[in-house]
Amino acid sequence: MTESKPEIRSGLDGVYFMESAICKVDGANGRLYYYGYPIDELAAESNFEEVSYLLMNGRLPNLSELSSFRERMRAARAIPGEVIDVITELSERSTPMHILSTAVDMIGSLKREGPDRKSTYIEIISELSSVVAAIGSISATGRYTRPEDSLGHIENFLYMLKGERPNKESVEIMERMFILHAEHSSNASTFSAIVTASTLSDIYSSTVSAINTLKGPLHGGADEMALRMLNDMRGKDIARYVDNTIALGGRIMGFGHRVYKSYDPRATIIKGILESVQPKASAEVRELTKTVLSLEAVMRDKVSSKGIWPNVDLFTGPVYRYLDILPELFTPIFAASRAPGWCSHIQEYWKSNKLLRPTVFYTGEVGKRYVPIEKRQGE
Amino acid sequence: MTESKPEIRSGLDGVYFMESAICKVDGANGRLYYYGYPIDELAAESNFEEVSYLLMNGRLPNLSELSSFRERMRAARAIPGEVIDVITELSERSTPMHILSTAVDMIGSLKREGPDRKSTYIEIISELSSVVAAIGSISATGRYTRPEDSLGHIENFLYMLKGERPNKESVEIMERMFILHAEHSSNASTFSAIVTASTLSDIYSSTVSAINTLKGPLHGGADEMALRMLNDMRGKDIARYVDNTIALGGRIMGFGHRVYKSYDPRATIIKGILESVQPKASAEVRELTKTVLSLEAVMRDKVSSKGIWPNVDLFTGPVYRYLDILPELFTPIFAASRAPGWCSHIQEYWKSNKLLRPTVFYTGEVGKRYVPIEKRQGE
Repeated sequence: MTESKPEIRSGLDGVYFMESAICKVDGANGRLYYYGYPIDELAAESNFEEVSYLLMNGRLPNLSELSSFRERMRAARAIPGEVIDVITELSERSTPMHILSTAVDMIGSLKREGPDRKSTYIEIISELSSVVAAIGSISATGRYTRPEDSLGHIENFLYMLKGERPNKESVEIMERMFILHAEHSSNASTFSAIVTASTLSDIYSSTVSAINTLKGPLHGGADEMALRMLNDMRGKDIARYVDNTIALGGRIMGFGHRVYKSYDPRATIIKGILESVQPKASAEVRELTKTVLSLEAVMRDKVSSKGIWPNVDLFTGPVYRYLDILPELFTPIFAASRAPGWCSHIQEYWKSNKLLRPTVFYTGEVGKRYVPIEKRQGE
Repeated sequence: MTESKPEIRSGLDGVYFMESAICKVDGANGRLYYYGYPIDELAAESNFEEVSYLLMNGRLPNLSELSSFRERMRAARAIPGEVIDVITELSERSTPMHILSTAVDMIGSLKREGPDRKSTYIEIISELSSVVAAIGSISATGRYTRPEDSLGHIENFLYMLKGERPNKESVEIMERMFILHAEHSSNASTFSAIVTASTLSDIYSSTVSAINTLKGPLHGGADEMALRMLNDMRGKDIARYVDNTIALGGRIMGFGHRVYKSYDPRATIIKGILESVQPKASAEVRELTKTVLSLEAVMRDKVSSKGIWPNVDLFTGPVYRYLDILPELFTPIFAASRAPGWCSHIQEYWKSNKLLRPTVFYTGEVGKRYVPIEKRQGE
């Protein structure tokens, strides 16, 4: 039974499991591309439906293709009444992320996915936003706002979330936030979706795996934690706060990234949004902005030389607060905006599917003998 | 932007991601050990609660430890009424595996997992059996049978499933089937649970990932498909059936395994169970047994020299039919019996947790320019 110990690839860090043409994260240069398009151009000029089309088709649509794609997303907006009942039932007893996974799993159970996968992807991208809006609305007011056909996807999302038509600026900001979060290569939630998909399970089940993986604080929730930290820093000496946190073995949220060793290009754009809204911002948001910019300056002095720069989570919370969105919805909104990324990777993996099953190296004993319980010693 | 192409580990096949002391699958010699104990000794002498204890604690319990463990499993048997409502709602509109993932996710949402993980593991192991029994019972009769405290875990499972007390033989057979399916190293569903757990998501969420991954026909469902094939072979020339299936690119279910290159030790035991019940078996089961033994003989002649032997799925269906269990419940029962394996691996991974995030090799373009939609060409 002697086996020489193989190389253990802890966390599967640096192990390549496939080729992919979806997303390039250029960490050294701080650049990000979806199917070859730079994220800053998409954020400035595109919209969430178009980016979803891009991620599902590998190219940008023409006018009639986009119109038809939008129509199919619109047709999938409504949530089954049974699912609304469960969201309502859970709303006072659970967390938005838990309710989200249960609701999406239940939609998958009710629909029993048909053979037209292309349609299912579009439906899931559309439904996830509706479910998140319903969770937010029902948690806050007890009411579910039905989707409104005349509105675009993001406008409708904000309408279902708030129960009233959003202004143009809110829609434009949220459009950009959704685009910036739509895809980021094989992160943990996307990988989880692929693992589930690799047994030829269905798209809903794979999406639920992604949501359940995003629940973990090592993956999702960083923007919520960053906001909490900013609130905690308020009025304090930030340089000292940072030193104390690090001395105690804590972490400054919103900085550093496994891939980016320069400024996260998404953080640049979100910081720009935050700065642009200052004149109209509430006292809370202005205070948060002051804090976050001071923190950025402190961290630039202290750790930028080590390749630690602001990441996408740092400025996201203050921008969502400008839109009057509660922190417990940040991660569910992340899930809704990441849906096209998950679907794109599932679709790509299935083109040359192989069951994903890495191996463990056994270090235990073999050949113990079963002793009847009466003869066992206590410990 | 030129990068040399790295090695791609397709399916992560043969990549070691951790050390583990839980399960040794000795494929060359056709042996299987849970924490060092051979599967044949456990199947012959142990019971599901004790094997669950072993998998969660790394050793067999003494009398008082087992008694306390059983008590804790018993206390977790009841399913919340809201979840029974959802199972009932879904029972005529979905599949047992879909209902199972939705129900377990919903229990997780309702319970919002406390800090005592040890208790949560025990509760999940207990609850999964109750949920599967409820799904089977409600699908068949519309009724939910409440758990009965005076019964052991497997006896209660069969009681909740059938609505009546099972006989001793059924309990003994099912006990062994649960033990044989309780654990099998890092298969796809277990790996999926670990991926979700690696973000420090919770145990319910990780278990739901495992269930959703088990849904896929490349992982779960093989015993159900094997039974369907046996029924299809009935009365036919089996050697010719096998030749035709292989000639058409099809697969003979219930044979061959990624790791076992000899007789799967679980198949040996299940075959023994099937043979032992023949005198009392129905005409259906006797016919299935005749077919499966003929098939085994044909396959032995044809492919055993290539290391293709019966696996755990071949004889499972006929044994479950002897217990009058419907084929659509085979995979849910697999899930219920695998719960301690999933929990054991989650617990072990968390002892030295690291976010699981392998990498993709980018093969697409970069630096495309965004063209306004009016100026794009149609395709």
